[in-house]
Amino acid sequence: MQENSFHYVDGGVVAAKGFVASGISAGIKKSGARDLALIVAKEPCPAAAVFTRSSMAAAPVVYSRESIASGMLKACIINSGNANACTGVSGMADVRATAASVARLLECDASQVVVSSTGVIGVPLPLDPLLNSIPEAVAALDYASGDDAAQAIMTTDTFVKQIAVSIQCAGRTYTVGGMAKGSGMIMPNMATMLGVLTCDAPLTSHACDTALRTAVATTFNRITVDSDTSTNDMVLLMASGAAGGEAIGEGDECFRAVASAIREVCGELARMIVKDGEGATTFITVTVRGALSEEDALDAAMSIANSPLFKTAIYGNDANWGRVAMAVGKSKAHVAPDRLEVIFAGIPVCRDGMAIPFDEKEALAALSQPEVEVVADLHLGDGEATVWTCDLSHEYVKINGEYRT
Amino acid sequence: MQENSFHYVDGGVVAAKGFVASGISAGIKKSGARDLALIVAKEPCPAAAVFTRSSMAAAPVVYSRESIASGMLKACIINSGNANACTGVSGMADVRATAASVARLLECDASQVVVSSTGVIGVPLPLDPLLNSIPEAVAALDYASGDDAAQAIMTTDTFVKQIAVSIQCAGRTYTVGGMAKGSGMIMPNMATMLGVLTCDAPLTSHACDTALRTAVATTFNRITVDSDTSTNDMVLLMASGAAGGEAIGEGDECFRAVASAIREVCGELARMIVKDGEGATTFITVTVRGALSEEDALDAAMSIANSPLFKTAIYGNDANWGRVAMAVGKSKAHVAPDRLEVIFAGIPVCRDGMAIPFDEKEALAALSQPEVEVVADLHLGDGEATVWTCDLSHEYVKINGEYRT
Repeated sequence: MQENSFHYVDGGVVAAKGFVASGISAGIKKSGARDLALIVAKEPCPAAAVFTRSSMAAAPVVYSRESIASGMLKACIINSGNANACTGVSGMADVRATAASVARLLECDASQVVVSSTGVIGVPLPLDPLLNSIPEAVAALDYASGDDAAQAIMTTDTFVKQIAVSIQCAGRTYTVGGMAKGSGMIMPNMATMLGVLTCDAPLTSHACDTALRTAVATTFNRITVDSDTSTNDMVLLMASGAAGGEAIGEGDECFRAVASAIREVCGELARMIVKDGEGATTFITVTVRGALSEEDALDAAMSIANSPLFKTAIYGNDANWGRVAMAVGKSKAHVAPDRLEVIFAGIPVCRDGMAIPFDEKEALAALSQPEVEVVADLHLGDGEATVWTCDLSHEYVKINGEYRT
Repeated sequence: MQENSFHYVDGGVVAAKGFVASGISAGIKKSGARDLALIVAKEPCPAAAVFTRSSMAAAPVVYSRESIASGMLKACIINSGNANACTGVSGMADVRATAASVARLLECDASQVVVSSTGVIGVPLPLDPLLNSIPEAVAALDYASGDDAAQAIMTTDTFVKQIAVSIQCAGRTYTVGGMAKGSGMIMPNMATMLGVLTCDAPLTSHACDTALRTAVATTFNRITVDSDTSTNDMVLLMASGAAGGEAIGEGDECFRAVASAIREVCGELARMIVKDGEGATTFITVTVRGALSEEDALDAAMSIANSPLFKTAIYGNDANWGRVAMAVGKSKAHVAPDRLEVIFAGIPVCRDGMAIPFDEKEALAALSQPEVEVVADLHLGDGEATVWTCDLSHEYVKINGEYRT
């Protein structure tokens, strides 16, 4: 994924010029941990977002879809600890009140504010503590608080997820940074869990949209932890243009470079989410190749990556490739049973649809590594797709059996 | 499900007249437990079967699809401990040798023998021990060995699954009996795991097929343990006609009565499979009603029943209805977010898409029962579907992380 032209830099969501951020405690999380993040562009700027396809989309998603329609944004406010999902008319009113409060303090229009929430579903948002904390969040805005903001969007996450890269183009340095959260209810569908990217290249709104959708298609939309799609998924990209230069549209010289940096940040954040998958002990790269089409390859790869039997086998460090065959078989992909090849962690275990002898000790050692690659080659065509997932462990069951208690 | 006209009787797969069975140890299972079942009709008789839709269907499935095409069957032989799946050309030859051996001893045509295998995928069938044991299996055939046969098809099953019912029609008593196996890799798709039904009504082959497909559609095809579809699924129905009377076609007087008995046996066996779901601690009935269509209702119900987050919440006795909302939202069903109603174990927890107050202690007590019903009412139409599933527990992870070892 990493290209030579990228330079990794510090700062996360405020690494790009023209953005400030803060992350404070508004008292929504019982623990008192940071739970309110604010990301603000110095001036309203081009932006784009993708959202969950859930038909039970949460109130902030419904609101923010409208905000982003104009393609110009000033700020994004995110609370964790409460998803404001399944909260009806009052949930919608709470989003509007939040956006209005942010807009008043930042002297912008409420339609230039994206609101996002993540946490438990079906519990009314504690609006008063949230509104009372917005002035503090605004006062705390600065160029060095990317880490605070990234902390403030965590729920069951065990580590902060942020990254930033710089690229050179046409004599200028452009930076793309971002943060994300999520470790369960992860099977994005044309959108994902929560991710915020900032960029100081002068992308147009349309270029933002194209770059983001293209990047998400092969990054956030290629990960799955547990096949469950959230009501609150969103990935947002804001482009301040603060690094200077002429506006960059999709046909312009630097579009490819900036878009590749956006893809890099999306990819790294997506893989961090899988690594922090609830209860995950193994990061699994599933590649299906030789399919009749990319669509077939993706369907088969997702079928493998979402199979509880495959995921528990990897948890048990067991080269049980029969479960890969099963998962390929139940997918919608075209399959010739006598052509299937399966490679576990570099070790061929199945060829022509049949077992081939392998050293179980060697396989056990390879599968005991923290990262494992599984390849299924259908030997039918050129279609290929890679998805990232994690194993299914005792800890996943523990975390999710006790989530509300 | 139980209608007054059914009488539950003993005998399982040999309760119906005209069938004998046996279940012996052929040495395929390392434990020495019974692993070879044989079910034989006194005379070749009408039969029908449904099979897995997996494109990686195992050799015995490929063979048996051909056997059943004629609609007449003499015998069914089943081994457990090895699935004979992903075994290529030699796997197919092993099936033919097995069928030929059975046919020779029973003096019938090999095309009148159905062969089925269940167990580990990708390991060559130990053919010699199997062939050497067939004479013993034939010698052991009798009218009282239904239990032996049902034991011989078990893999990770923790209890024997068999049932039989009798009904009266037109002055005669007809009996339908059956046995099944399965507790993991259970998400049947137009077929299911292993099930064998016998019936002494004089059904025609075509009537067998109609009755079986109709029954399976709302029984075996409405259960899921882990969303994974086996390479070896099969449900077989044989009708000896030994109870006498004129041939029964689909338009005839007793067809409905016999078909309802077949459905009853399929339903009970399907529910037994879910109750024995790997690691299951709770039997869950998921009903979606008020959908725009039955298809919508079924899609939403399967989405709930397959959600790892929903299943772990039930394992934790947690009335976390937000996960029902999430699962409905990610399904293909049409949903109006402000109409959703959710009822957990008789306790309304969500109405008009929002939380309603409920007694958490009462909910905890209700969810701690061994059987729990969850209802989601979309309040959009008349579509309704019920599926049966189980919770996702630590034990599931344990069983499947260590399956081959």
